[in-house]
Amino acid sequence: MIIAIKPGTGGEELGDFIALLEKKGLRINLSEGITQTVLGLVGDTTGIDAEALMAHRLVEKVLRVQEPYKRANRMFHPEDTLIEIRGPDGGKRRIGGGCLTVMAGPCSVETPEQITAVARSVKQAGAAFLRGGAFKPRTSPYSFQGLGCRGLDLLVRAKRETGLPIVTELMDIHHLELFEDVDIIQVGARNMQNFTLLRELSRCRKPVLLKRGHACTITELLMAAEYILAGGNDRLILCERGIRSFDPYTRNILDLSAVPALKRQSHLPVIVDPSHATGLAWMVPAMAKAAIAAGADGLIIEVHNQPEAALCDGEQSVTPEVFASLMDSLRRYADIEGKKL
Amino acid sequence: MIIAIKPGTGGEELGDFIALLEKKGLRINLSEGITQTVLGLVGDTTGIDAEALMAHRLVEKVLRVQEPYKRANRMFHPEDTLIEIRGPDGGKRRIGGGCLTVMAGPCSVETPEQITAVARSVKQAGAAFLRGGAFKPRTSPYSFQGLGCRGLDLLVRAKRETGLPIVTELMDIHHLELFEDVDIIQVGARNMQNFTLLRELSRCRKPVLLKRGHACTITELLMAAEYILAGGNDRLILCERGIRSFDPYTRNILDLSAVPALKRQSHLPVIVDPSHATGLAWMVPAMAKAAIAAGADGLIIEVHNQPEAALCDGEQSVTPEVFASLMDSLRRYADIEGKKL
Amino acid sequence: MIIAIKPGTGGEELGDFIALLEKKGLRINLSEGITQTVLGLVGDTTGIDAEALMAHRLVEKVLRVQEPYKRANRMFHPEDTLIEIRGPDGGKRRIGGGCLTVMAGPCSVETPEQITAVARSVKQAGAAFLRGGAFKPRTSPYSFQGLGCRGLDLLVRAKRETGLPIVTELMDIHHLELFEDVDIIQVGARNMQNFTLLRELSRCRKPVLLKRGHACTITELLMAAEYILAGGNDRLILCERGIRSFDPYTRNILDLSAVPALKRQSHLPVIVDPSHATGLAWMVPAMAKAAIAAGADGLIIEVHNQPEAALCDGEQSVTPEVFASLMDSLRRYADIEGKKL
Amino acid sequence: MIIAIKPGTGGEELGDFIALLEKKGLRINLSEGITQTVLGLVGDTTGIDAEALMAHRLVEKVLRVQEPYKRANRMFHPEDTLIEIRGPDGGKRRIGGGCLTVMAGPCSVETPEQITAVARSVKQAGAAFLRGGAFKPRTSPYSFQGLGCRGLDLLVRAKRETGLPIVTELMDIHHLELFEDVDIIQVGARNMQNFTLLRELSRCRKPVLLKRGHACTITELLMAAEYILAGGNDRLILCERGIRSFDPYTRNILDLSAVPALKRQSHLPVIVDPSHATGLAWMVPAMAKAAIAAGADGLIIEVHNQPEAALCDGEQSVTPEVFASLMDSLRRYADIEGKKL
Repeated sequence: MIIAIKPGTGGEELGDFIALLEKKGLRINLSEGITQTVLGLVGDTTGIDAEALMAHRLVEKVLRVQEPYKRANRMFHPEDTLIEIRGPDGGKRRIGGGCLTVMAGPCSVETPEQITAVARSVKQAGAAFLRGGAFKPRTSPYSFQGLGCRGLDLLVRAKRETGLPIVTELMDIHHLELFEDVDIIQVGARNMQNFTLLRELSRCRKPVLLKRGHACTITELLMAAEYILAGGNDRLILCERGIRSFDPYTRNILDLSAVPALKRQSHLPVIVDPSHATGLAWMVPAMAKAAIAAGADGLIIEVHNQPEAALCDGEQSVTPEVFASLMDSLRRYADIEGKKL
Repeated sequence: MIIAIKPGTGGEELGDFIALLEKKGLRINLSEGITQTVLGLVGDTTGIDAEALMAHRLVEKVLRVQEPYKRANRMFHPEDTLIEIRGPDGGKRRIGGGCLTVMAGPCSVETPEQITAVARSVKQAGAAFLRGGAFKPRTSPYSFQGLGCRGLDLLVRAKRETGLPIVTELMDIHHLELFEDVDIIQVGARNMQNFTLLRELSRCRKPVLLKRGHACTITELLMAAEYILAGGNDRLILCERGIRSFDPYTRNILDLSAVPALKRQSHLPVIVDPSHATGLAWMVPAMAKAAIAAGADGLIIEVHNQPEAALCDGEQSVTPEVFASLMDSLRRYADIEGKKL
Repeated sequence: MIIAIKPGTGGEELGDFIALLEKKGLRINLSEGITQTVLGLVGDTTGIDAEALMAHRLVEKVLRVQEPYKRANRMFHPEDTLIEIRGPDGGKRRIGGGCLTVMAGPCSVETPEQITAVARSVKQAGAAFLRGGAFKPRTSPYSFQGLGCRGLDLLVRAKRETGLPIVTELMDIHHLELFEDVDIIQVGARNMQNFTLLRELSRCRKPVLLKRGHACTITELLMAAEYILAGGNDRLILCERGIRSFDPYTRNILDLSAVPALKRQSHLPVIVDPSHATGLAWMVPAMAKAAIAAGADGLIIEVHNQPEAALCDGEQSVTPEVFASLMDSLRRYADIEGKKL
Repeated sequence: MIIAIKPGTGGEELGDFIALLEKKGLRINLSEGITQTVLGLVGDTTGIDAEALMAHRLVEKVLRVQEPYKRANRMFHPEDTLIEIRGPDGGKRRIGGGCLTVMAGPCSVETPEQITAVARSVKQAGAAFLRGGAFKPRTSPYSFQGLGCRGLDLLVRAKRETGLPIVTELMDIHHLELFEDVDIIQVGARNMQNFTLLRELSRCRKPVLLKRGHACTITELLMAAEYILAGGNDRLILCERGIRSFDPYTRNILDLSAVPALKRQSHLPVIVDPSHATGLAWMVPAMAKAAIAAGADGLIIEVHNQPEAALCDGEQSVTPEVFASLMDSLRRYADIEGKKL
């Protein structure tokens, strides 16, 4: 971290300021120029609050040279993280490290027939995980809120029938014990900075899928990841799912530059959710292919056997037929990129 | 709600679609033109998911005429909500309904001396509530996270010493019992769509201060309010605290048009937080005055006796002297607007 | 267009309002329900200003069913527009209609050696057009503003030497006669809503490459296209080049969902500029591939033989070696999509 | 400007890089620490392109300490700029320097009766300038584009009849000679970065009102101002008129923090346009008052005698009655702030 000192700052008060910084365990590299005095802070600055420093009356500007995250940082962990999850059939599914992993299923679990039918069709098309919502974060208190525990039961039953491990969203840390048979716990975009939840999940032993908040930066996503990693849970997957913009054409703007950005800054696997990002089923195949071309490690896609009758988000769900055809295309993309789907 | 049907839609499938809508308890007003068929949905459409309707293959576009919130809606509750809170001295503080209410105090509670000193100075300047963070949502797991329970104790002690009721943020619903002596529970911007938390707070009997999420729309804020109101807690205050933009000059953009917008759409009191919105102490007085001119019912302002030494967000805290001088200006603004500060 | 009338609107004033609309050449379809009166406007509503209608005291809401653009609209022109440009060697280059077209070259023309060297290398790698800036829109009046006329001369010389047709930006309509040997005139993002310029270009006979403004919606881009088409110039190419967001990681956010959106709404070819969008050379290959996977008809990419010495935007230019390797990958992507590069 | 050098950079290549910088007329202050080497650039860095520097392989990060604008910078011009304009009656109108100046009138000039009636009513209410559009930038080529020259004539006639100096938008530099009787030339938001236009206006002797582009930063607005100032035209007024956001409630978000920001960074007068920013007539009074409370030097407000019949933007125009009542309130606000309306 580099601090530009305000012009005309005299010796004693500068000395006091340096002493203050040294008390935080940093070594200070002082460079006095004719017009500009600069302090270089040497040591671990991840705990230093750059904004708080800005409040000091001697400080002109602050430049962070190192990123404020450590465990999520590729600089300290150059190799890709590979996450392995054993399915109910004993087979391993891999996420990251040269694999392409597709998670698919309905937005909400609705009936035993629906979830089983969708699970079978996505398995046949090549999905590695079944996704489905049991507890649903809904903007309106009057909208369908998911089947809750019964939804979880239906998901687990579909898992047993198809052998697909499951991923579903946790909204309340008290439900954690209900999630025993869940293979990956999803943290939704609206909870990306629910630090209470992140801290609890950092202590559990389940893999976590962390979705980017719809107005959070790359750095903020990696800081949220840092909460989970810092507590000891290193089985973490990041997910880009669209950010807010001024254009109402799509629900959100899918930020595919987040994929190479996250892969460069971090060692964690990165998957993309084109369904929630665009909110438009007809756009999902194009954006799914683009995500893979941009370097994503996988996708999470909404599939519904009757999108028109879906209890939520039907307009963004593709049919099993469209999904199967998309998977065929994705295999050819995986080939080009030397990845295994 | 009005649904434009796709051109060329025939009789039977349209009949089926209408039957489907009628099953949701709505009466359908069919208008068949030569080029455009339009359905008017009559009845309570707050539970209807416009996005889900868009998924139906017969639907061209959907227009919501009524807002999706009901209890927060001024249409169904024309009079301003007035919230009264009794201080430890027995005196009443009012929020809304022609009063101007200022809440002030440090970002974080740090020491007994600090919180008491700040509490005294803001009381003397005319603040009606003491604010202070005990549990702090921090972007980094390595930043100071607040004093927690001990912070709460210090706040309560400052409340007793000064007679100022207190407002502080709740991050974890399990802490609710610790908040017995807290007068207003704050829901932070990052938790505005933590629906689990909102639902729990809808069942408690404490007034709630709900901050707008930094990328949430006016409608989404009112839907979050609806969660709290729908559960039976009608002592709710809304707070504008800045939204994300592309310009890094201020931390967020203070959206003052949210004030007249929220006052028109809803009966709930609306206060403004210029400190978090701008992140710049020198800008706080200008934006505080502008908020009152725009029609806000109050302000929540960060005041610190030593901003430079603050453990968090010092650069946005004004000194007690600046705060006192601002309060003098605000009294003159209140006069013009016929409000009581 | 559908207009929801305010509840309680009586007979005579509604009649007057309908008469007012009929005077604009529209036929009105009146649907009176018990709680909601709706007007359907039949006829050509492209000239109707929906915002102006909102000002009328009887109007509750307005819903546009048809898009406000006509000539750019795929509905009225279902087939892809294919643009053919004859190079100095007599060979045809195609844009749109199943072709993949890559335009490449330096941000600015700097010296004869530079532009010729880059032109040769991008030609060899398979680029179909040479791009290069002669007149540069720069945020600062003190930055290098391009070589102007001399830059144009150097571009034309490079065109003759290599046989590559050229694309370059026009900032001032008075320069039009200088652009005689330019093959495609670029309208920069900052001029997308310079309607004076658009109108002049609608009357010229050169193909135009219209870049999306950095905070313009899909609809606004198509309305800007409509200005050019309405004047009679139908050789128009659209270009997505990144939109503003809150995240400083990349200069702009490349909005790849704009590609399927524009292809669905319009028949015009759509190319993508990953260099300006991201501002980061290392990210260009990933985003270029993603653009093709999303369905783009081509790319415009900055290539510089010495990025470090570039007089502008060097940090976003790839080297000729990186470009050649990218073109190899793109050929494989083109194969999958059944397109010809 | 401060440059952090990449770790491990050796002596010779660093020497070459320093020599390169010195050739640009800068003196380099080298500070070599154990883990971080930092260069301080001493001298005039306004012409240095920070982004281009980022392309150099030795550069880790760049921190601008000084702003890239000079003539617009309050640091080099501490006193407020005061602009005086003589009206047709010989009386002076002042903008800046402790005055509050209100410009009012219709969005578009429509008929002699309309513009004269509005001019009279706004004059009587206390407006100092008449605004009105003759050449209108419209998103759609099919919308009313303004009366053009005839509109200018009508404006000038209204000026003579009322004695109010006039402000109107210039879209095409060729119209400059038609603007002889115009007192302030407006540059619209869409042309804020039309550098060709700015450069021409920098050479003319008319005061210029420069509107902030709807997705331009504070710094970009001041750089656009710099174009005009650098050419010798120092009679320049800045105008905040709303920026793009994700919330459709208002057309744009009025960024009132831009007012204190611009006043701190620059010496130029700053006015606010609440009409275009919000697009909602009922919100204009609240935001106009807030703008003055935030420290604006004036306002530009749309007033129409028959908003419902306006040919453009009627929904954002207040009636003469509302305007007169607003002016009464504003006088009381001016009093508090010690300004003269």
